[in-house]
Amino acid sequence: QQIQHLAGTSAPTTIIHLARLLVFLVLLGIIPSTIIFLVDISVHKVFDLRESIIELDIHSPLAVFLFALTGVALCLASTFVCHLCSTEAEGSGIPAMKSLMSGFYDKVKPALSLWALLAKTVGLVCAIGGGLPVGWEGPNVHISCIVAHHLSRLPPFRALRRDRALRMQIMACACAVGLASSFGTPIGGVLYALETTASFYLVPTFWKCVLATLAGSFVYDMLYKTPLVEAFANTSFGDTPYRGQLPAFMLLGALLGLLGAFFVRCVHTLYLLRKRRLPGTNRYVLLFVFGLVAALLQYPLPNFRLDPRLAINDFFSAEKMDMFSLPEVAILVLVKFPLIVISIGLPVPAGVFIPCFLVGAGLGRLYGELLNLLFGQNVVAGGYAVVGAAAFTAGVTRALSVAVVIFEVTGQLKHTMPTLAAVLISVIFANGINRSLYDALIIMKRLPYMPHMRRDRTPEQKVHHIMRTDVISLPEFCSLVQIRETLDKYQSFDSFPIVTKDGLLLGSVRRRSLLNLITRANANIPAEAHTAKPIERHAQAPQESEESPDKDLSVQEADLSVMESEDEQARKQLIPQDQLTINQSFRTRLEPDLSPLIVTANTSLSQLHFMFVMLMPTHAYVLIGGELQGIVTRGDLVQSGEPPNLPSHPHLSELAPT
Amino acid sequence: QQIQHLAGTSAPTTIIHLARLLVFLVLLGIIPSTIIFLVDISVHKVFDLRESIIELDIHSPLAVFLFALTGVALCLASTFVCHLCSTEAEGSGIPAMKSLMSGFYDKVKPALSLWALLAKTVGLVCAIGGGLPVGWEGPNVHISCIVAHHLSRLPPFRALRRDRALRMQIMACACAVGLASSFGTPIGGVLYALETTASFYLVPTFWKCVLATLAGSFVYDMLYKTPLVEAFANTSFGDTPYRGQLPAFMLLGALLGLLGAFFVRCVHTLYLLRKRRLPGTNRYVLLFVFGLVAALLQYPLPNFRLDPRLAINDFFSAEKMDMFSLPEVAILVLVKFPLIVISIGLPVPAGVFIPCFLVGAGLGRLYGELLNLLFGQNVVAGGYAVVGAAAFTAGVTRALSVAVVIFEVTGQLKHTMPTLAAVLISVIFANGINRSLYDALIIMKRLPYMPHMRRDRTPEQKVHHIMRTDVISLPEFCSLVQIRETLDKYQSFDSFPIVTKDGLLLGSVRRRSLLNLITRANANIPAEAHTAKPIERHAQAPQESEESPDKDLSVQEADLSVMESEDEQARKQLIPQDQLTINQSFRTRLEPDLSPLIVTANTSLSQLHFMFVMLMPTHAYVLIGGELQGIVTRGDLVQSGEPPNLPSHPHLSELAPT
Repeated sequence: QQIQHLAGTSAPTTIIHLARLLVFLVLLGIIPSTIIFLVDISVHKVFDLRESIIELDIHSPLAVFLFALTGVALCLASTFVCHLCSTEAEGSGIPAMKSLMSGFYDKVKPALSLWALLAKTVGLVCAIGGGLPVGWEGPNVHISCIVAHHLSRLPPFRALRRDRALRMQIMACACAVGLASSFGTPIGGVLYALETTASFYLVPTFWKCVLATLAGSFVYDMLYKTPLVEAFANTSFGDTPYRGQLPAFMLLGALLGLLGAFFVRCVHTLYLLRKRRLPGTNRYVLLFVFGLVAALLQYPLPNFRLDPRLAINDFFSAEKMDMFSLPEVAILVLVKFPLIVISIGLPVPAGVFIPCFLVGAGLGRLYGELLNLLFGQNVVAGGYAVVGAAAFTAGVTRALSVAVVIFEVTGQLKHTMPTLAAVLISVIFANGINRSLYDALIIMKRLPYMPHMRRDRTPEQKVHHIMRTDVISLPEFCSLVQIRETLDKYQSFDSFPIVTKDGLLLGSVRRRSLLNLITRANANIPAEAHTAKPIERHAQAPQESEESPDKDLSVQEADLSVMESEDEQARKQLIPQDQLTINQSFRTRLEPDLSPLIVTANTSLSQLHFMFVMLMPTHAYVLIGGELQGIVTRGDLVQSGEPPNLPSHPHLSELAPT
Repeated sequence: QQIQHLAGTSAPTTIIHLARLLVFLVLLGIIPSTIIFLVDISVHKVFDLRESIIELDIHSPLAVFLFALTGVALCLASTFVCHLCSTEAEGSGIPAMKSLMSGFYDKVKPALSLWALLAKTVGLVCAIGGGLPVGWEGPNVHISCIVAHHLSRLPPFRALRRDRALRMQIMACACAVGLASSFGTPIGGVLYALETTASFYLVPTFWKCVLATLAGSFVYDMLYKTPLVEAFANTSFGDTPYRGQLPAFMLLGALLGLLGAFFVRCVHTLYLLRKRRLPGTNRYVLLFVFGLVAALLQYPLPNFRLDPRLAINDFFSAEKMDMFSLPEVAILVLVKFPLIVISIGLPVPAGVFIPCFLVGAGLGRLYGELLNLLFGQNVVAGGYAVVGAAAFTAGVTRALSVAVVIFEVTGQLKHTMPTLAAVLISVIFANGINRSLYDALIIMKRLPYMPHMRRDRTPEQKVHHIMRTDVISLPEFCSLVQIRETLDKYQSFDSFPIVTKDGLLLGSVRRRSLLNLITRANANIPAEAHTAKPIERHAQAPQESEESPDKDLSVQEADLSVMESEDEQARKQLIPQDQLTINQSFRTRLEPDLSPLIVTANTSLSQLHFMFVMLMPTHAYVLIGGELQGIVTRGDLVQSGEPPNLPSHPHLSELAPT
């Protein structure tokens, strides 16, 4: 099943399956886009309301007070709703989605609750409405993933969830829709989803993303072409040749790349500083202070209170700017930069694209105006603003797809080459200095992330250096009592390895199959019947199990080290204990029905890491001369998000060559 | 090494490595683009020359004769150069590159020779110049891959080749450059490379592709903006709203998708027909007949002799067409369609994009003009031509990136939504009927291709159904004589599994390590020294070996069934036979220095296929209770290109549950 989709050469199994998938993807495009529009229009209303306060009388202290009060109240409301509903809604959301897409669906699941959706939407409206310089594309991606998660749990689409590869593809589509519907950029969204994917991108995701973003763009097009909210305006650069200016564009890219890296560094430093100096700061105090500062800074300058899209449109214009003078642009950039750095770390929903666009466009405009002054009319400053917006955002996020987003936002392909060149140079320069903002946030928030190997591991280490030797296994010939005891004791394990009496690995068996075996034995079915063709019978197990579709993925990984399980009660009831009196001592032969990932003890960690990244298993068994000698779980190898509590490594002297 | 690039989270090891890579990628952009331009300008010269014959006197029989003669001569020359230099240069080249990118670098290597480059370029000039309706994007992709292959073998870049993952990424970049430089479409090229990649796309490929295509586009921009050859003109659609016409665009997409599928079917049927009815047809006879037909058809109509780009530009125009009347468009499409179908199968270099663009644009224009007639001036027929070109090409190639290519070609993002929608519908409809043209060609040409499982395998089969049991292994304690005999006997094997005396698998050892062992033993180094820390010592082997960098990839896979090797002499000399008199009977302990892919016998083929696709190994060992019982090579599982000669499968009754 999984393979078929992965290979992508054949159509999905049936017409019904395909139809289901198509409807799902269209809905996945439409629903988040609608939510995103509603959020945007709410923000707009809040803006208008606060603007009307100022319009009363700009010089009255009452207006200042009311403006600041509403700002602070909204900021507090934003963090309150996150505090109340789901703290997972704080921040951008993209780091969590990157973690999810690298294979940690289950660990990130709390961030996919409907409470998180509520907190994210309401919190976002309050945060932007309250005057925080935050963007909405990260939260939108998050919102869209939550919608995808819950949509796929509805009965008509549940069949889609069963396929692990397809589930990952659906989440990639959700990411694409989130970004595409923020800006009305279907192709940019698809490319962004590609780059968000941690390490490899399944090619069949591509058409699914296109369909979903297309449906989303259709909604965007319908709604944003109304005069209800501001949208990005198309640029209209003429045919002025710019080929000679390519070096200037590239220099701009390099400078903004370095600035982007500096931005990430600032966010990181601020985070460390706050953690060390002000470890217990109340979230409300933070928001109160910052909301007040933001309100007071914005009050005197109407341009500061503008929807960033209007400012960006002005920076991008081919002619003279309408709303900004050059010193105003400079002040805007200087003031906004630190504000943005701070707000990214605040406990409210906060995106980063739009603020970066704004700063980058401003800087690009200034740079362009300077060049215009120096070299004359051939230099269109608006073009530099476009390139600057893309380059700075790329320097922060390290996403090349920003270039495509900007083409679609501006509706012109005029600056293809300078934009691509500047973005590429920006990313290369910034990567030379530090990680992307999202990767930095992943590390700060201790999210599990597959492509990062744990810091206490080196690629040259061998598997036998890190494996755990306390593997729980079942013997080939095993009594029902023994099975039941093992199942009881290791409630959280989803499968068990089976070994011969010499410890040689035969394969592994699902918990479910063992439970079936016990149930059947107690129902007095002759014992021989179990073992006659158990492989075929057990192979049907995955289709039967819809009650816990995610269990296979990571339960075992997460809890192999934790010997006590929390949901003991939930599982225990599955074993009909009262019937266990019969056949207690009967020894049955266990047949493996799973094929675990097996490696030899001298496999290098770099190779094992490669296998974990590509195959996304939860664990691998380690064989030494055919004997099951150890186990390595995903958490033993990759950055798992938990503080590293190293298991004791027994000295494996027997492995050293003698 | 491999992992680091794959994960893409850290920068390449050193600044030098990065600089090398950057220079390489820029060259990879520049060189193929220049070659492509030179080919194009040569075609143009040939066109002009033949055109001048007609201009003498269009009604004279001499002119007809000369025109036909030159046409036929050029067609014959095209196939002659392929026949002489490299038959691998025939056809599109994209199927071979798809096969390469799915993991069969070595098998496709003959297609990467410099002879193939010569045949492809000269053959392409003659074929297009001779009036065959063939495109150049497929050959350009091929040319670009050949350049990448040879460029990476130059001393400064050889270090890049060592990294298998990087090597694959470089080939993806080459594909991107090939397409991007054919049309001047950097983003479209990058996306096309993504779709060409068989099943998964390593995300770090993305920036490399962007850099290479950008360098290529720079060259394109410089050269094609000269008046030397025709280039695509930008379209200039006004602001006529088209939202209400979306259903019409979608219908066009569906129709052209079906037509695209029909096109693929025609190509396939024609291929089978030719193979059955005319098995021994001489290539020159084919080309003579077809060249004559093409020349005679083109002679009377000047529009048939046009550079297809000029015709496409005319179809795309927002106004009335300059050069074509509507009946002429209809005739062009009707005549070109079968001609294109036939020429794809001819033994000359032949692309498919441009001819498909032409037919699709023509059909779209006709459809648009019809709508215009029915619904009035709001319908811009040129817009339908744009959408039609994209939709038909997508229907044939199943590449969604065609949509992006067309945006870049036309320089307008005006029709984003209708184009994307039509292309998507076209691909979905066409996929419902058959495979893409490239996949069909891969099957016709029996190329190895990883995503296709062999037809005699089903995903439900288990590994023990298909494994070979005649595994060649070395015992743990082994005399030098035994090692030497094994090395001599199985010259083509690159590694050998090591088993205990009970047949339990310990790991596997490289041929190179065994050779080292023998050499060292003969140099009278005390035997204990070999086995003291052999893992560390052997681990350095891959860095030392530059003489056969590709051997690791697939030699073992290809030849495990073939017991006689052809290059016996070449390898034998590595063993210093005259020195083997000493230490003949000394039994040394072999240490495994490789970690092979291991699976249990009841692993399903779908799972094994997944592992082969994702990890690209050449073989997997099959364990039953720790014992090495079988081996499955890549060729046993995936479509290997060779006629299926099934190995005898011993009846594995011992595996059936008892």
